[in-house]
Amino acid sequence: MLRVAVIGGGAAGMATASRVKRLLRDRAEVVVFEKTPWVSFALCGTPYYLSCKVKTLNDLLHYPLEEFTEKRGINVMLRTEVTDVELDARRLRYRRLDTGETGVYEFDYVVFATGARPRAPKNWLRFRNVFTLHSLADADRLREAVVRDSVRRVIVIGAGYTGIEAADNIALLGRRVVIVHSSKRILSRSLDPDIAEKVEERAKTAGIEFVLGRSVVDVEGSEGYARSVVLDNGEKMYGDLFVVSMGIEPNVELARRAGVRIGGTGAIWVDTRLRTSREEAYAVGDVAETVDILTGERIWWPFATAANKMGFVAGTNIAGGDAFFPGVVRTRAMGAFGLYIAGTGLLEEEARRMGFDVVTATLTAHTRARYMGHGPEIVLKVLADANTGMLLGAQALSEDPSAFWRIAVVATLLMKKASVWDLFNADIGYWPGVNTVWDPLVVAARLLLRRLGTRPREVSRQDTGSKGA
Amino acid sequence: MLRVAVIGGGAAGMATASRVKRLLRDRAEVVVFEKTPWVSFALCGTPYYLSCKVKTLNDLLHYPLEEFTEKRGINVMLRTEVTDVELDARRLRYRRLDTGETGVYEFDYVVFATGARPRAPKNWLRFRNVFTLHSLADADRLREAVVRDSVRRVIVIGAGYTGIEAADNIALLGRRVVIVHSSKRILSRSLDPDIAEKVEERAKTAGIEFVLGRSVVDVEGSEGYARSVVLDNGEKMYGDLFVVSMGIEPNVELARRAGVRIGGTGAIWVDTRLRTSREEAYAVGDVAETVDILTGERIWWPFATAANKMGFVAGTNIAGGDAFFPGVVRTRAMGAFGLYIAGTGLLEEEARRMGFDVVTATLTAHTRARYMGHGPEIVLKVLADANTGMLLGAQALSEDPSAFWRIAVVATLLMKKASVWDLFNADIGYWPGVNTVWDPLVVAARLLLRRLGTRPREVSRQDTGSKGA
Repeated sequence: MLRVAVIGGGAAGMATASRVKRLLRDRAEVVVFEKTPWVSFALCGTPYYLSCKVKTLNDLLHYPLEEFTEKRGINVMLRTEVTDVELDARRLRYRRLDTGETGVYEFDYVVFATGARPRAPKNWLRFRNVFTLHSLADADRLREAVVRDSVRRVIVIGAGYTGIEAADNIALLGRRVVIVHSSKRILSRSLDPDIAEKVEERAKTAGIEFVLGRSVVDVEGSEGYARSVVLDNGEKMYGDLFVVSMGIEPNVELARRAGVRIGGTGAIWVDTRLRTSREEAYAVGDVAETVDILTGERIWWPFATAANKMGFVAGTNIAGGDAFFPGVVRTRAMGAFGLYIAGTGLLEEEARRMGFDVVTATLTAHTRARYMGHGPEIVLKVLADANTGMLLGAQALSEDPSAFWRIAVVATLLMKKASVWDLFNADIGYWPGVNTVWDPLVVAARLLLRRLGTRPREVSRQDTGSKGA
Repeated sequence: MLRVAVIGGGAAGMATASRVKRLLRDRAEVVVFEKTPWVSFALCGTPYYLSCKVKTLNDLLHYPLEEFTEKRGINVMLRTEVTDVELDARRLRYRRLDTGETGVYEFDYVVFATGARPRAPKNWLRFRNVFTLHSLADADRLREAVVRDSVRRVIVIGAGYTGIEAADNIALLGRRVVIVHSSKRILSRSLDPDIAEKVEERAKTAGIEFVLGRSVVDVEGSEGYARSVVLDNGEKMYGDLFVVSMGIEPNVELARRAGVRIGGTGAIWVDTRLRTSREEAYAVGDVAETVDILTGERIWWPFATAANKMGFVAGTNIAGGDAFFPGVVRTRAMGAFGLYIAGTGLLEEEARRMGFDVVTATLTAHTRARYMGHGPEIVLKVLADANTGMLLGAQALSEDPSAFWRIAVVATLLMKKASVWDLFNADIGYWPGVNTVWDPLVVAARLLLRRLGTRPREVSRQDTGSKGA
C-alpha cells in the first residue's frame, strides 16, 4: 500500500490525489490535508461572485466533496493544517483547526500543493473594510461588505487580473470604483502598454477611475475602519471599502522548513516530473516553479490550467508512471468591461531586454466576414524576432471570444517554437460566420513578413514538415 | 517591365495579381482575365445569399473592382475568356464575351487561376428549375427562383458543404427540403459517421428530410421543367426545384491544352512555390494541387484560405521573391442548423486505410465553466495513432463558435506533426467565461493518453522543446 500525503486541496492537490487513486485504486492511500472547509475551489471565479453572476460559494467548487471521498476514494481532512514535514522520517504532523487535536501521518510521498497568498501589508488588513480576494472566504467576506448600501466608493489597490476583474464586478453593483496602480499602465505584466491602454479606455467608459503611476504607501483609518489610502506623493484618497490586489506569493514556508529547495523565483524548485530536490517530495500548482518553454527560463506561473496539469503529471509519476510537464508559454486570459482579453508569450519590452530583435504587427480588424455582419472588432498584436523569424508572443482583445481563441492558436505555435511563416501557413480553417478568409492572425503574419524582409525564409524551410516536391 | 497574365479573377487570381503589383509596382504589368462580370467573389457566402442573410451580390465581393484597378494598378478584363495559352511563345489568346472581339497578350509569366466547376450532368441542367451553386450568377438565379411562392418542395442532390448549407438556407425560407445523398451519412468526406449523425439529428429538428445511401440516376420533367428525380432503386421523388451539389472538379482544360502537367488528383501539378511543370506557368487556388502535410500525399483541396495564401506565395515568387506554400492539414468548417461544424486532418476510416493504428476520444462537454453558465455543449472527437502518439485529426460541433476554434488549435498542432502529449500540454489558456479549466481539448488528450498506455512517452520527450531540468 502506497501512502501519499497531499498538502493543500486546491486544483493542483486534488488533481494529484485523483490521479494517484485512478491509477492505483486500492493499492494507494491518499490523504489530502486542507486548511479551509473547501476543496477543488475555483479561485478564477471569485470576482464573479462579487457581482452575483456566480450566486453561491458552492457554485465555485469544481466538484462536491463526495466526488473525491466516496467516488474517488480520497481521504480528505478539512480544516486541518499541516504544521511540520519530516522528510527523512517520511512523516508529517497536522493539527485540526476546529478541535486543536494533533496527529502524525506517515507517507511514502508527500505533495506540496500549498498554493499562494495575497501580498498585502498586515497592518492594512487590520481594518475591517480592507479586503483581499484570493480564497472563497475572502470572496464571501468581500461580497457581504460591498453589497451594503453605505458603500459608495471603492478603492482597488493594484491593477493586475484580480484587481481589474474585481473592479469590473464591483462597478456592476453600482459602486464608484477607483483603481490605484504603481505602473503607468494597468495589467502591466500581461499586456504591452499600447494594448493595456485600450483596456483602460474601455474601463473608463464603464465608469472606472484610474490613478496610475502612484503607489499606495499607507492605509489610514480609525475605530477599526480604513478611511483613505496615502499615495507616494502624500495625497490621500477617501474610500468606503478597499480591495488590496498587489499580487500573490507562494506558500513555501512549510517546504522550506522541511529542507526542500526553493528556486530562484521564490517558489519550490521542481524538475519536469514535478519532483522537488527531495526524492520523496513533489510540488504542484501555485507553490511550484515551472519553465518558460520559449526562453528556457525557470519562472513562477501560478495559473489554474498549469496547476491542474501539474497535478495530473505528479500523480502519474507518484503512481509509478512516467509523465512530465514541459512548462508553459505564459498564456493568460481574462474578461472585463465586456472584453475578452488574452495574451501569450513575451511582452515587447521583456523580449527586447532578453536580446531579441523584436518586430511587431498590431492591427484592428473585424472578427467575421463583412457580409455575415462582420462581428465585433479585434485588436491583435503579434511579436516576432527579426533575426530568426521566431514568434515571441501575441496579445488580443475583443468583445468577441475569438480574441481568446486566436491567442490560443499563437500559444500552440509558441509551444513548438514556430516562425512567422508557420503562423502564415497555419491551416486554421475558415467559415464566414466565424472568421475572415484572411484571418486577422494571417494578416498579422503577413505584416510581420513584410517587416522581416527575406530573413525568415531559412526558418520556414527547416520548420515545416512538407514533403511536397 | 515584367508582364504577368492571370487567368481567373477569383480569390487566388486576385491575390496573385495584388501581390505582384505590391512587390513590383510600376515594374510589372498585371492583367487579369475573368469570364464573369465579377472579381474577388466570396463563393463561401453564396448559401447565405439564398436566405437573404446576405442581401446583395455586391456584398459577396471582397473588394470593389476599383480597389484592384485604381488602387492596386491591376488591369482587369471582365467578361473575357482566355481561349488558348501558348507557353513556348509566351502568349495567350482571349475573346471578349460581349463583343466577340479577340486579342493576344504576351506575357513573361502566366498564372492559371481558373478555379473549379460543379459536377452535374448536362442533361439535368437543361431544366429551368435545376440549379447548381458555384458562382454569383448561380446564386442570383437560384435565389430568384427559390423565393417564388410556387416552390414548396426542394430536392437537394448531394450532402457535402454546399448541399447542406444550401438546404439550411432554403429551409429558412419556409420551403420543405429533401436531401438525397449517395453515402449512408451526410458530409461523408468531412466528418466521421458518428459525428455526421449528430448533424443529421439536428437537421431533422430543423425540418430537413434525408434520403441517404441512394443515388440520383436521372432527373425527369417536361416542357423545360424538372418534376422529379429518379433514384437508383427506381423510386421517383417529386420536387418543385432542384439543387445539384454533387461536388466540384477543377477547370484544367486550358492548362492541359497548353501542355502543363496535370497531377494524379486531376488538378494542376505544382511545386511548393506554386510553379507548374512549366517554368513560365504558375497555378493557384481551386485548380491547383497541394500537399497534405500530415501524410505527405498530394491532394486536391479547393478551399478559400488555401487559395488566398497560394496567391500570395505565387505572387511573391513571380515578383522574384522566395516563398512557398507547404500545404494543408485539411481543416474545414461550416455552419448549418445553428451549429458550428469543423474538422481537421484525417477521417477515422481513411486513417485506418493508411495503416495507422487509430485510437479515438469522443466526448460531449460544456464549452464554458459551469459557474459562468457553462455555455452550449460541444461534441469533440480527436484521433491519434497508437504506435507513435501522433495526432491524426479532430472534428467538433457546437452551437458555440469555440467548436471552430478548438479545431483550429488541433490543426495548428497537426501542421507540426504533434503528439497527444503536445495537445495535453498545449498552453491555450483559461478564463471561466470562455472555456473550462480542463478544456475539452485537454480532456480528449487525457482520454487518448489512457488508450495509448505508455507508448507515447518517447514521442513526447523528443517533441517538446523544454529545457527544464
